[in-house]
Amino acid sequence: MAKAKKKDEPIILITNDDGISSPGIRALVESVTGLGKIVVVAPDKPQSGMGHAITIGHPLRMHPVHLFEGIDAYQCSGTPVDCVKLAVDKVLHRKPDICLSGVNHGPNHSINVIYSGTMSAALEASIESIPSVGFSLLDYSIEADFTGSKKYARLLVEHLLNKAYDKHLCLNVNIPAVPESLLKGLKVCKQAYAKYEEEFDERHDPHGKKYYWLTGDFINFDKGKDTDVWALKNNYISVVPVQFDLTHYVLKEKLEKYLIIK
Amino acid sequence: MAKAKKKDEPIILITNDDGISSPGIRALVESVTGLGKIVVVAPDKPQSGMGHAITIGHPLRMHPVHLFEGIDAYQCSGTPVDCVKLAVDKVLHRKPDICLSGVNHGPNHSINVIYSGTMSAALEASIESIPSVGFSLLDYSIEADFTGSKKYARLLVEHLLNKAYDKHLCLNVNIPAVPESLLKGLKVCKQAYAKYEEEFDERHDPHGKKYYWLTGDFINFDKGKDTDVWALKNNYISVVPVQFDLTHYVLKEKLEKYLIIK
Repeated sequence: MAKAKKKDEPIILITNDDGISSPGIRALVESVTGLGKIVVVAPDKPQSGMGHAITIGHPLRMHPVHLFEGIDAYQCSGTPVDCVKLAVDKVLHRKPDICLSGVNHGPNHSINVIYSGTMSAALEASIESIPSVGFSLLDYSIEADFTGSKKYARLLVEHLLNKAYDKHLCLNVNIPAVPESLLKGLKVCKQAYAKYEEEFDERHDPHGKKYYWLTGDFINFDKGKDTDVWALKNNYISVVPVQFDLTHYVLKEKLEKYLIIK
Repeated sequence: MAKAKKKDEPIILITNDDGISSPGIRALVESVTGLGKIVVVAPDKPQSGMGHAITIGHPLRMHPVHLFEGIDAYQCSGTPVDCVKLAVDKVLHRKPDICLSGVNHGPNHSINVIYSGTMSAALEASIESIPSVGFSLLDYSIEADFTGSKKYARLLVEHLLNKAYDKHLCLNVNIPAVPESLLKGLKVCKQAYAKYEEEFDERHDPHGKKYYWLTGDFINFDKGKDTDVWALKNNYISVVPVQFDLTHYVLKEKLEKYLIIK
């Protein structure tokens, strides 16, 4: 049976993009146990690279699952963003006090924030005025060591539950894949200007028809010491506050002067 | 046979998220005919609401199709973002001079920019240092009237091909669904703070199992006259410059002061 909510106990919604049975989400649940009433609503299959996709042409399924001792958990057929929307409307029937996403198996620093299902779930919560954090460990392995991630996730969530920064707060937290003893703590950063140089691997199927696999190298163009890429290379846990107002205000001023079409 | 590129003729890459056979992409191709060498690479099926999704766990297919007289066109099995990546690496073998996305059947103003496949394709181009524009008409109908969209798309693209604002320029252009004679021209705006209030429609399938349809009302919280929502309501074509650096710099300063976890 799920634990009933104690009076004034914060509600912590947890989701991810690797799927509800991934070790990363289990690590996140364990890391915040005791800090509030935890409810998990997460995809029933991996949804990496889904970005801010939502399901509009098909219905969604959602079922309770007994995966975490004493914790209400639901698996959902949709994207990470769908999970947040469904959790608020059909599971919690209210906004949670905080939404956590992850721990992702693999990095979501710099430009990855745009493609990441983990961070899109967090950003969706922030649009809904729910403070949120997306956690990602720089290790794709299913056997990754989440010890350091768990320690710092708990410290950060405790801090955030006791301090009201902004109802739209959304943090992109990445953790270097080094032993816990080498972690230097949290560092607030900006998103590095970095991108992937794509190269598609062109192959032929057994019927002679072409198909393409996405491959590519990650290239960091940003040499600043205030970026997430720099922080991670230097064993800091990077914390980038993220916003959903995509307006480019500098370009806006320029365009207002020169782009006159009546 | 596809037209060969004339000397110094700009290359215009066109994509969308409604699929290569939608009337909106045809309107966009027609609107810029004669301004450069046009190449179309677009999804083979509707990809609305796909956000910045990319295909990483499956291979992609891409085939030439003869849909537009005298124009190289390819349909792709992937998302709008995949189309841009594939076009640059496997079709053009270079960066185009501009990337156009749309014309979308339906609005992509305000918070829609986050969910929109149309705008994600444009943003992907901008990450690749390709100036880009996403066009959306505020009419979902397959029989929508694109007369005004075509007129202003051409004027804007002509302007941009003759003026170098920024290699990362990305414009979110929305066109009101009114007769062309009522359009008041372009207005540079910021993204309105607006969102959807979701309500999932809960139903039971013939086997008694629950499923959910996403529904919701669009609510604009932003009363400013400098927003895209205001511009569109007043028959202006809204133009919002969009950026891919999601760092929230105001919150960053605050967090640097108060978020100290070693």
